[in-house]
Amino acid sequence: MFLTRTEYDRGVNTFSPEGRLFQVEYAIEAIKLGSTAIGLKTKEGVVLAVEKRITSPLLEPSSVEKIMEIDSHIGCAMSGLIADARTLVEHARVETQNHRFSYGEPMTVESTTQALCDLALRFGEGDEESMSRPFGVSLLIAGHDENGPSLYYTDPSGTFWQCTAKAIGSGSEGADSSLQEQYNKDLTLQEAETIALSILKQVMEEKVTPNNVDIAKVAPTYHLYTPAEVEAVISRL
Amino acid sequence: MFLTRTEYDRGVNTFSPEGRLFQVEYAIEAIKLGSTAIGLKTKEGVVLAVEKRITSPLLEPSSVEKIMEIDSHIGCAMSGLIADARTLVEHARVETQNHRFSYGEPMTVESTTQALCDLALRFGEGDEESMSRPFGVSLLIAGHDENGPSLYYTDPSGTFWQCTAKAIGSGSEGADSSLQEQYNKDLTLQEAETIALSILKQVMEEKVTPNNVDIAKVAPTYHLYTPAEVEAVISRL
Amino acid sequence: MFLTRTEYDRGVNTFSPEGRLFQVEYAIEAIKLGSTAIGLKTKEGVVLAVEKRITSPLLEPSSVEKIMEIDSHIGCAMSGLIADARTLVEHARVETQNHRFSYGEPMTVESTTQALCDLALRFGEGDEESMSRPFGVSLLIAGHDENGPSLYYTDPSGTFWQCTAKAIGSGSEGADSSLQEQYNKDLTLQEAETIALSILKQVMEEKVTPNNVDIAKVAPTYHLYTPAEVEAVISRL
Amino acid sequence: MFLTRTEYDRGVNTFSPEGRLFQVEYAIEAIKLGSTAIGLKTKEGVVLAVEKRITSPLLEPSSVEKIMEIDSHIGCAMSGLIADARTLVEHARVETQNHRFSYGEPMTVESTTQALCDLALRFGEGDEESMSRPFGVSLLIAGHDENGPSLYYTDPSGTFWQCTAKAIGSGSEGADSSLQEQYNKDLTLQEAETIALSILKQVMEEKVTPNNVDIAKVAPTYHLYTPAEVEAVISRL
Amino acid sequence: MFLTRTEYDRGVNTFSPEGRLFQVEYAIEAIKLGSTAIGLKTKEGVVLAVEKRITSPLLEPSSVEKIMEIDSHIGCAMSGLIADARTLVEHARVETQNHRFSYGEPMTVESTTQALCDLALRFGEGDEESMSRPFGVSLLIAGHDENGPSLYYTDPSGTFWQCTAKAIGSGSEGADSSLQEQYNKDLTLQEAETIALSILKQVMEEKVTPNNVDIAKVAPTYHLYTPAEVEAVISRL
Amino acid sequence: MFLTRTEYDRGVNTFSPEGRLFQVEYAIEAIKLGSTAIGLKTKEGVVLAVEKRITSPLLEPSSVEKIMEIDSHIGCAMSGLIADARTLVEHARVETQNHRFSYGEPMTVESTTQALCDLALRFGEGDEESMSRPFGVSLLIAGHDENGPSLYYTDPSGTFWQCTAKAIGSGSEGADSSLQEQYNKDLTLQEAETIALSILKQVMEEKVTPNNVDIAKVAPTYHLYTPAEVEAVISRL
Amino acid sequence: MFLTRTEYDRGVNTFSPEGRLFQVEYAIEAIKLGSTAIGLKTKEGVVLAVEKRITSPLLEPSSVEKIMEIDSHIGCAMSGLIADARTLVEHARVETQNHRFSYGEPMTVESTTQALCDLALRFGEGDEESMSRPFGVSLLIAGHDENGPSLYYTDPSGTFWQCTAKAIGSGSEGADSSLQEQYNKDLTLQEAETIALSILKQVMEEKVTPNNVDIAKVAPTYHLYTPAEVEAVISRL
Repeated sequence: MFLTRTEYDRGVNTFSPEGRLFQVEYAIEAIKLGSTAIGLKTKEGVVLAVEKRITSPLLEPSSVEKIMEIDSHIGCAMSGLIADARTLVEHARVETQNHRFSYGEPMTVESTTQALCDLALRFGEGDEESMSRPFGVSLLIAGHDENGPSLYYTDPSGTFWQCTAKAIGSGSEGADSSLQEQYNKDLTLQEAETIALSILKQVMEEKVTPNNVDIAKVAPTYHLYTPAEVEAVISRL
Repeated sequence: MFLTRTEYDRGVNTFSPEGRLFQVEYAIEAIKLGSTAIGLKTKEGVVLAVEKRITSPLLEPSSVEKIMEIDSHIGCAMSGLIADARTLVEHARVETQNHRFSYGEPMTVESTTQALCDLALRFGEGDEESMSRPFGVSLLIAGHDENGPSLYYTDPSGTFWQCTAKAIGSGSEGADSSLQEQYNKDLTLQEAETIALSILKQVMEEKVTPNNVDIAKVAPTYHLYTPAEVEAVISRL
Repeated sequence: MFLTRTEYDRGVNTFSPEGRLFQVEYAIEAIKLGSTAIGLKTKEGVVLAVEKRITSPLLEPSSVEKIMEIDSHIGCAMSGLIADARTLVEHARVETQNHRFSYGEPMTVESTTQALCDLALRFGEGDEESMSRPFGVSLLIAGHDENGPSLYYTDPSGTFWQCTAKAIGSGSEGADSSLQEQYNKDLTLQEAETIALSILKQVMEEKVTPNNVDIAKVAPTYHLYTPAEVEAVISRL
Repeated sequence: MFLTRTEYDRGVNTFSPEGRLFQVEYAIEAIKLGSTAIGLKTKEGVVLAVEKRITSPLLEPSSVEKIMEIDSHIGCAMSGLIADARTLVEHARVETQNHRFSYGEPMTVESTTQALCDLALRFGEGDEESMSRPFGVSLLIAGHDENGPSLYYTDPSGTFWQCTAKAIGSGSEGADSSLQEQYNKDLTLQEAETIALSILKQVMEEKVTPNNVDIAKVAPTYHLYTPAEVEAVISRL
Repeated sequence: MFLTRTEYDRGVNTFSPEGRLFQVEYAIEAIKLGSTAIGLKTKEGVVLAVEKRITSPLLEPSSVEKIMEIDSHIGCAMSGLIADARTLVEHARVETQNHRFSYGEPMTVESTTQALCDLALRFGEGDEESMSRPFGVSLLIAGHDENGPSLYYTDPSGTFWQCTAKAIGSGSEGADSSLQEQYNKDLTLQEAETIALSILKQVMEEKVTPNNVDIAKVAPTYHLYTPAEVEAVISRL
Repeated sequence: MFLTRTEYDRGVNTFSPEGRLFQVEYAIEAIKLGSTAIGLKTKEGVVLAVEKRITSPLLEPSSVEKIMEIDSHIGCAMSGLIADARTLVEHARVETQNHRFSYGEPMTVESTTQALCDLALRFGEGDEESMSRPFGVSLLIAGHDENGPSLYYTDPSGTFWQCTAKAIGSGSEGADSSLQEQYNKDLTLQEAETIALSILKQVMEEKVTPNNVDIAKVAPTYHLYTPAEVEAVISRL
Repeated sequence: MFLTRTEYDRGVNTFSPEGRLFQVEYAIEAIKLGSTAIGLKTKEGVVLAVEKRITSPLLEPSSVEKIMEIDSHIGCAMSGLIADARTLVEHARVETQNHRFSYGEPMTVESTTQALCDLALRFGEGDEESMSRPFGVSLLIAGHDENGPSLYYTDPSGTFWQCTAKAIGSGSEGADSSLQEQYNKDLTLQEAETIALSILKQVMEEKVTPNNVDIAKVAPTYHLYTPAEVEAVISRL
């Protein structure tokens, strides 16, 4: 049973008899091993919160970056292989800068997301920018453009969806349930911060501190919270 | 028995001893896992209707696009891998725009369909635009040109057929039977809308709402129905 | 026994120990699954007739094209993978147009056939125009040039033969026997039409109608019969 | 035992532990399945004779070409895969024409043979003109140049030999024995014709007619016998 | 169990069903076979110390380089395959020199580390600078720039972390525990030297001498200790 | 045991666990199947003698060339695959002609040998001039340059040695023993001819005649013996 | 156990689960089959001595070159595949000549060694200069530059070490032990010659003669000993 599967995914990007793409499914498994990240969209803007796994007291917490800026109006939280995420984010940064240079205006959040997914889809094609395997990473892309705030979720297959709230990573199942219970459209940004961190707290195995979580917002520009700002949110829990 | 098959499709695009192309057949399986889409041609124009699987209340329904515009006179509904469909649609959009630019007139619906299928056929060839595997998607292409309205159906093998009505996706078998019973050439566009949605309703496991279906028409230009317009069709059921 | 074969055809285009090319033989199997097509040469011109498998009443019969024009003096009937046939025909159309442009005269039927077979022979070579597998299609090429009418038959190995009459596809065995009994050199074109359709009738599982057969002639120019013309032939049976 | 062999020839052009090249040996097997061809050199010129397998009365005998002209002073008979032979002959035609154009004189028979063998040797190399497998064909090359008449024999390994007489194809073993008994240097061209056809008659399973054999000579220019000329030789048997 | 694994990593850079990249994990094993290296960051600068395995008295100790300069403000200690490390260091040297040339200022330590990891990530991609397998080496990168002293740790997956102290190689597990006990932010550079060497002494199987350890600091410029300077640190243990 | 070997040489040019290159060893086996060739160096020049296997009385003995001229001062005898040898000799001819053209003097025998071996060494590299497998041929290269006469022996690994006398091919083992007994530095060219032919006679299964052996000398220029000259040597035995 | 290994090294340059590179380890095995070579560094210069395996009295001893000059100040002794060594040496000769041409001064011994190892490291990369497998050769590189005399040892992994004395090849284990006992820094060049040859004598199975050993020195320029000079060293044993 199990051996049969292995026959199909050697070709990296080929269908199994049931019409499945195993390498993509395995990459999705990689994300289930990753740390949890959460995003919520409010009318005031989007909040992103991530768990940082600080495996040793000798690690510099600030160097474990799981929320990154793409452009001044777009940021993203990630779960999965960090090195893969860096490649995607770097690609998106170049795309958004090129767009500003060519058209004199910021790239929309959807176009930016589409550009990321185009790269993710073409793994195994052997062309210059693509990888020889799927990117082992999911992203929550928070942005603000002429259509107001928006939140996108991408997976290794190169598909994306627009969400009002979403969790990714090892704790995503429980976190998504909590989000469905607690989310409503009229949340303030501050309420969203509190919900994000309280849910993150549930899925983390240790006490929440400014060292092991990061929070950012796009409202309407990207801002990564300082340890003091994170501490303030924690104190509201 | 089963193992023997696996020997043949490693080469992605090679024949089995029985003269079959397994990767294409497996891609067709991928479509059987997809959501249902329906198209009907009337003298007034073509109607497309699709089921949208909204797996979570946190997803933005409008971001689950399974009907897309190719040119002002052509649209398509899809079933299967959405990321693959986006690549094909993007390719068709470039082709139709190039045609307008070069010849000063819209591309015919058949030429557009042929251009899509040429790309689909050449998987595994290693050239720049093609994929390393078949595109895991079927399309219903609705259009209107000098020959009047037309509806095409494409599959992963790169073959296409012109139809009066057609269903694709997981519910296609039952839906095709219903179409054969209910379709006739003299349907009005409004009657076609009603039939499409009533059949979709049968194959969907949940209540039909403007959130979980999309409807579009090409009559003679492409128009995606607003939630209110969808609601109006639902109310006629 | 069976497994051993699979060892040899992985290389797509390599010999087995008995000196056989399995991928070509498997492609020939693909044709045995195809619909039946028949060609007859008379002094007045060549007749082609094909079975169209209209699997659903919702299919537009006219869009199931199994007889296609290559140039005004050449047409062909096909059996096997339609998408492959379209690629070959498109290639032949370009070749014949180039020939007219370069030399100011039509390409001969044999040269056109040779050009098609050159492309078919070079599968697995990795160059730009060739496929990574054999073309899974047989063609009956009917034409008229300075040598008068002629009928060619090609198979997936890139070989071609000139014939007076020939059947291809799933019913070819029985149809070939019937042709040998009924064919003679002095047939009129009308007699050839009748023989072609009566033999096709024997191998088809359903009633012959203008919807499920196509007839064409090259005498001396290509003409695809209208439904009324097909009906007229049917009425003579 | 048998399975072990299969390990070695997957690489198309690699040695087995015994120092053998299996793909070449398998290609030679393909020729043993082919029709028989015979060549004899006399002082007056060279005679070629081949068996044509007319599998159906509907085939045009003249379109089954197993003897082809390369240049006005060189012709060849073939056994094995006809499509492969056509590629080699086409290559040789271009080479001989280029030679005439560049040097203002005909290419020698040996140089022409060498050019054919260079192409045959380089299979599996991936360059533009070569095949991905050995050419499955043997040739008898008859020519006349400044050294008088000559007859060459080539096999799929790219090796060639000069002969006074030679048979290839399925009946070659018996035919070679007969040639050794009957050949002598002082044969007239007419005697050579008779010997060639009488030996061919022995190895063919059916009656010899102008329809199922071809005869050609290079004496000193290439000439393919008309049915009447063939009939004349048959009548002398 | 074990055999199943081997199926997945043949593709060099593909996911296993559990979402793992085995070639990267195996490369990490290569580092566990390597000699131990230790880095500590203090306010005065960063200290690096490595074990040199002098397997024979005939080896020149100075030619076993496991600490190398990248630029005047950056150095690195390595564990794993030395030839791979040399390639990475050479790449980093070119990058830092290009940066100085282009911008007239030194490259930051993080950018240098990122450049190294970009190269490490793209193994198996077939482009010009990348390897066909992961680089089998971990680095401790010590530097000093406008942000003061910093210490980075990289692994074969192309991921990097900023640390206050870190050990790599065969003795890293024990050494990391000792570092956590003994490290604090207010260490002087001299105290850091002593801690590094005393921990190294615990994991080495032989007596520590200036021959079998190397020490370097970046404070704020790179300096490799002379045997006398190493002797001085040893004498403080 | 045996199967295990096959695992290693699929990669054409990879080491086995014992540090062996099987494809090269198998190519050496191909030579052990070849006809015997012998070379002897004297102060007057070098003698080459080969067995020609005339398998049929219908073969032209002069067309079985196993001794070939490279340049006016260099010739070679071969054993193994003749088509491979022709490629190497053709390469060497171009190299020596280029050398004469560029430097206005003949290429030395060692440089010519080195050029041949460079090509032989790089099999499986995929570049333009190299083969996808080792060349299955050994050469005895006889030459005369500013250092006087010399004799080189090459094998499929691309290695070469200078010899005073050497035998290659199926009878090489016995022939080498005989050469060691009979060879001394002061042989005349005529004595060398006699020894070469008498040893060849021992290893051949049939009577030696001018038809089934070839003899050549480089003294100081290349000369292939006429049948009469060969007959003269035979008569001295 | 053994079969499992074979799974990993098919990819030529991939890690095994234990973090090992088997193709490199197998190449090192190839060297253990090679002849023994010894190098010793003294203050006066470096001595190299090699065993020459003269398998037949018909071989020219001078053509078995296992010590070669790279530049006037650098020479090397080799063990393993001679054809591979020639490629490396040729590469180094071009590098040193280019360096002299570009900078007007000799290349240092370490840079020359590094250049050799860069080429050795990149096997399996598919670029123009690299091999498809590791180079199956170890070198002892003796040189003299601004830092005085030096001796380097390289292996197939592309790693190099500086040594005072070192043995490679089949007898290296015993020879290395003897070197450790007998070597000291204050040896004269003449003492080094004697030690090298006396150790070589121990590991060789036959009597040492000027025919079956070679000696060279770099002091400060490269000099290969004449048979008389070798004889003189032998006589001192």
